Amino acid sequence: MPVLLVRGDREFLVQPGEEMGTDLGVLEVPADVEPGETIETHLEEAFDVRRLRGPDLFHHFERTGAPMVPRDIGLVIGETGISRGDRVLDAGTGTGVLSALMARAGASVVTYERNDEFADVARENMKLGGVADAVDVRTGDLTAEIERLEASSFDVLTLDTGDAAAVVEHAPDVLVDGGFLAVYSPFIESTREVVEAAREAALSNVRTRETIQREMQFDDRGSRPSTAPVGHTGYLTIARNV
Amino acid sequence: MPVLLVRGDREFLVQPGEEMGTDLGVLEVPADVEPGETIETHLEEAFDVRRLRGPDLFHHFERTGAPMVPRDIGLVIGETGISRGDRVLDAGTGTGVLSALMARAGASVVTYERNDEFADVARENMKLGGVADAVDVRTGDLTAEIERLEASSFDVLTLDTGDAAAVVEHAPDVLVDGGFLAVYSPFIESTREVVEAAREAALSNVRTRETIQREMQFDDRGSRPSTAPVGHTGYLTIARNV
Amino acid sequence: MPVLLVRGDREFLVQPGEEMGTDLGVLEVPADVEPGETIETHLEEAFDVRRLRGPDLFHHFERTGAPMVPRDIGLVIGETGISRGDRVLDAGTGTGVLSALMARAGASVVTYERNDEFADVARENMKLGGVADAVDVRTGDLTAEIERLEASSFDVLTLDTGDAAAVVEHAPDVLVDGGFLAVYSPFIESTREVVEAAREAALSNVRTRETIQREMQFDDRGSRPSTAPVGHTGYLTIARNV
Amino acid sequence: MPVLLVRGDREFLVQPGEEMGTDLGVLEVPADVEPGETIETHLEEAFDVRRLRGPDLFHHFERTGAPMVPRDIGLVIGETGISRGDRVLDAGTGTGVLSALMARAGASVVTYERNDEFADVARENMKLGGVADAVDVRTGDLTAEIERLEASSFDVLTLDTGDAAAVVEHAPDVLVDGGFLAVYSPFIESTREVVEAAREAALSNVRTRETIQREMQFDDRGSRPSTAPVGHTGYLTIARNV
Repeated sequence: MPVLLVRGDREFLVQPGEEMGTDLGVLEVPADVEPGETIETHLEEAFDVRRLRGPDLFHHFERTGAPMVPRDIGLVIGETGISRGDRVLDAGTGTGVLSALMARAGASVVTYERNDEFADVARENMKLGGVADAVDVRTGDLTAEIERLEASSFDVLTLDTGDAAAVVEHAPDVLVDGGFLAVYSPFIESTREVVEAAREAALSNVRTRETIQREMQFDDRGSRPSTAPVGHTGYLTIARNV
Repeated sequence: MPVLLVRGDREFLVQPGEEMGTDLGVLEVPADVEPGETIETHLEEAFDVRRLRGPDLFHHFERTGAPMVPRDIGLVIGETGISRGDRVLDAGTGTGVLSALMARAGASVVTYERNDEFADVARENMKLGGVADAVDVRTGDLTAEIERLEASSFDVLTLDTGDAAAVVEHAPDVLVDGGFLAVYSPFIESTREVVEAAREAALSNVRTRETIQREMQFDDRGSRPSTAPVGHTGYLTIARNV
Repeated sequence: MPVLLVRGDREFLVQPGEEMGTDLGVLEVPADVEPGETIETHLEEAFDVRRLRGPDLFHHFERTGAPMVPRDIGLVIGETGISRGDRVLDAGTGTGVLSALMARAGASVVTYERNDEFADVARENMKLGGVADAVDVRTGDLTAEIERLEASSFDVLTLDTGDAAAVVEHAPDVLVDGGFLAVYSPFIESTREVVEAAREAALSNVRTRETIQREMQFDDRGSRPSTAPVGHTGYLTIARNV
Repeated sequence: MPVLLVRGDREFLVQPGEEMGTDLGVLEVPADVEPGETIETHLEEAFDVRRLRGPDLFHHFERTGAPMVPRDIGLVIGETGISRGDRVLDAGTGTGVLSALMARAGASVVTYERNDEFADVARENMKLGGVADAVDVRTGDLTAEIERLEASSFDVLTLDTGDAAAVVEHAPDVLVDGGFLAVYSPFIESTREVVEAAREAALSNVRTRETIQREMQFDDRGSRPSTAPVGHTGYLTIARNV
């Protein structure tokens, strides 16, 4: 598993056994490196070894677009109950943070990305995040492929694509009984299409929520919501195959 | 692992090998039962076998109070990056849904509940949820116990208690470098105490968010936020031990 | 001007000089009655005389539908700057609370209501509210009539109708230079039509806001937003004829 | 009444009969100038004459601090029903926009400002806004003065000061029966003090609302709330003297 090497503002995501050049000298990362240890460069500059956590991926993954924010990933995980042993089908890989975090929670993920280069970057990100074994990044369009996938072979279907509605109509085929659909969509029109497709496909408990978050301020003058709140990200539609 | 037996509105959470009496006859659950199968009562009434998912726990756990809602659990998991191998320290077990869902995402959880009976119910719930091995429900007060816990032995500290601030001051002792604190608190005054304790304890990136969700309505007249939105649940304060 | 006669839970909206039968006897309201006085029924039961205020109209007007809530009326008045001497063109009179409150702030209002009976009720409501002189309730469809109205003869145009977009295209004709448009619309689709019509008509500063309000709770346990917030009412689109 | 002289981005707030030097020459504003006319500088550069509207005051008033935003002023006006003939007592004049807009809706306002210089600026602003006759800006502290004011001599009491709670306890003395209190306060702690003082003073229907507004975006991709919403301004507490 990859670890973080940290010293002040410097932070490197490295694999055990790897060699990493820094402005403070070369770090030879031992193959048996453990979080909590300290290792030194050849110039005897010390770095702390820290275990990689999910939110760190936002800083260390190469981005091919704006990744879904931790809050929305958390909502997807919470509302669908992602857990060990889950088989997740995903489309719209992008940077791959959602896939990586679901894998870190124990799921095996098959994710489709239309853009060749984005898919390549996502594959590298999965290695960086230590989840290359658990995430199968496929270059392609799930809309075209979904009819070829084995019936009832996924527990959860997560979508972050503009044409999610076209995939949703096949959700009952690929999901197990009791499986969940989660679609993230920034605009109301595409959200409506998703909801209509989910109803048409006879999925249950179809509901869409918009999430508004406000940072709170606590200072000497008192407590209040921030005057600079967090903006809209997207609508999250959840439905269940029951 | 427990499974769900489902027929129409009837839904039972059972262990493989268990016998369960229903109004449609007795179900003998095979020890090797698999989701996707169908089993019959002695009266030949069929039930579908479904894999248990996180959101099902809200319906099947015995409640000793209002459990944290899926959205807030998702936010805790997303903001702290709960994953396989995490060691989580929790206080305010209550019904135990947060502990169970973190365990299902691969964490091992030590959780404190002051109330004897609540702790007993939570232990039963952990068995029901198939996570008794991963969740250690301790009857007691973490505020009193925390100084006795091993230093740097937890990756994440989650709190849902009225006196969370008193625990927060010890967070840097029990958390590893890079570990996360997540505190859920319904009132602004106790939230402020938590924030002040986290700042005092020199935790980093201390921030509190309020989450407002609105159900969206899509019908023949058009699309709009529901006139009956989801209400306030609590403030979520996140901080990091760096 | 009408006044309120109040005694405990009893509250009557009456005109000076009027006679009003109550379960506590007959009230002869003097023609020169003044707020702050007390008057008695023929059975010597006392009622306080209170000046009518805008929010009282919500309770005393006969309703022909859900009137716009005080908050949205306030937003219309605040964003358009309704004041003495304003000439307001309105459509979708309904119960007439918006018209009455703009009149009470000094505007003269021409308002169109398609439904005969609703228009009659609105006229009675204007008398009740003491603004019959300032509000001209016209039975008819502003969409059909607007081309016949005098150019640049209104300072503000307020719309609460399903087909507001069809009126908006004529807004620049009927509004003075610097005049305001305010449209209240519950659904996103009709709101979008309004915005597109306003842009097409070359109105300036076109913007739509959604307003979310949360009641706050202050009790012995602490302070927090209510768990039962105020729901969605409508989108408010404001634009200016400059 | 003052008028606006407008040409492209240039905009001047002037009194009829006034002379105004501009970079395009001198404007002699006729004493009988009327909105809708065009007047020229001595260099024959034309300016349109526009009637002043409430929202214009935000641009033309000299600021001594951040004035209350149009939305909050609208909420105060809507929730208290400000109208012709109202006598309003106000404290925390600041820039004076709230006072001016209430005056423009027909109220006569007595407003207290502790800061000498701010009070002077506010008086100039009232002249600019054409409401100097209707707004009495008093230099002083309402907390100290309120006991000397005539009983039951105001219809509405509006407060935008840090120590509003100390004034609220006297609200029942200065307000008529049925009169309204409106307090604007940015922080939760001072809001709570206001609510407690209002309850203590036996005012009725005491309620506090927080208002969250989101700008909506409509473009070719679709419709959604803005990713940059309007932030927190303040809590508005409304109560009634009944």
